[in-house]
Amino acid sequence: MRRFVIVGQKATTAPEFSLDDLPATSGRLDVLLRCVQTALLVSHGLRRDALVYLVLLGGPRSPRAIRIDGRVAEYVRPDERSLAGLVKKLLATATDAPGFVPLAHGMSVAAGGLDAVVRDLGHFTPYVLEEETQDLRECPLDLRDPVFFVGDHVGFDETTRGRIAELGATALSVGPVRVHAHDAIAILWNEIDRRDARSSRG
Amino acid sequence: MRRFVIVGQKATTAPEFSLDDLPATSGRLDVLLRCVQTALLVSHGLRRDALVYLVLLGGPRSPRAIRIDGRVAEYVRPDERSLAGLVKKLLATATDAPGFVPLAHGMSVAAGGLDAVVRDLGHFTPYVLEEETQDLRECPLDLRDPVFFVGDHVGFDETTRGRIAELGATALSVGPVRVHAHDAIAILWNEIDRRDARSSRG
Repeated sequence: MRRFVIVGQKATTAPEFSLDDLPATSGRLDVLLRCVQTALLVSHGLRRDALVYLVLLGGPRSPRAIRIDGRVAEYVRPDERSLAGLVKKLLATATDAPGFVPLAHGMSVAAGGLDAVVRDLGHFTPYVLEEETQDLRECPLDLRDPVFFVGDHVGFDETTRGRIAELGATALSVGPVRVHAHDAIAILWNEIDRRDARSSRG
Repeated sequence: MRRFVIVGQKATTAPEFSLDDLPATSGRLDVLLRCVQTALLVSHGLRRDALVYLVLLGGPRSPRAIRIDGRVAEYVRPDERSLAGLVKKLLATATDAPGFVPLAHGMSVAAGGLDAVVRDLGHFTPYVLEEETQDLRECPLDLRDPVFFVGDHVGFDETTRGRIAELGATALSVGPVRVHAHDAIAILWNEIDRRDARSSRG
């Protein structure tokens, strides 16, 4: 499984955000939704070897974490409004249980943040996308159980950055230009897909 | 300038589509909007060396083409709904002039399709993104005046495909997995950014 942990510094845990103005009312949940889209979806389908966690650090009930499991997920559509509607429903029905509670169609919510995610991860090799670090193309990658930590449009807060460093995450850069988080995920997936293709060719 | 021509087979020319249900009411304009986003936007800004054409082949007044010029564009926001609102306004104020009529903030509309775009392009080296063709990473690229033709979620119709072939476009593949058009553009930009960085290092 290739797993992605997307951390939204201000992304809201409150389902009252407006679908008509996501950027202004949801703490830029739109940034995270685009990451979900790129991490999970390919042309006409889902990546069944992918799993996404969203860590929501904004809003009244923060932190909360959402998990979408590509192995079993359904109804994940590519447009932002559909994805936002999905997250709205998940947040509205979430309980205060600290672990991940399955809600529907491969989606779960936990009343916890990065710690709840790390407890859920089990065995993994951590990587973190960071600008001006080691070039992804030059870096060995664990293709079996990698976990990629990705920041939102304002990057990681210091606490999150420290926590990821404690995990021993290898920093990777996707290229010389600062691109949006979801574009970085597209570039990362492309490198993984190429290595998968090479290893399946033997 | 790096220019992108995104062709929407069903994308509507009629501004009456619903912002609340883009996929079902706009002929999947959402697919094209995500391409605009990735082609033009980087973290906290616009790519000032990029220009995007959208060719809309669906709806009552088709074909129409929209041009967004990164050199001078303003108010291009990353979320789909904002971009959709922008396109709605452009289509509502468009005239029936066959060439590109500047409307606002670096945006223009033409009452024509691919032919209007090709007339507007002037000098260029054409490339077309196609699965299972030459690997982008292995291909020489004109970094001065490339034009990249990109299909939507259903690819190119036969007429468009023939027209692009007549232009002598080089087919490029971004990788072994069929990804969404906007993810393909992210991967393409990454390759261009890397070559730019190499050539600026000398």
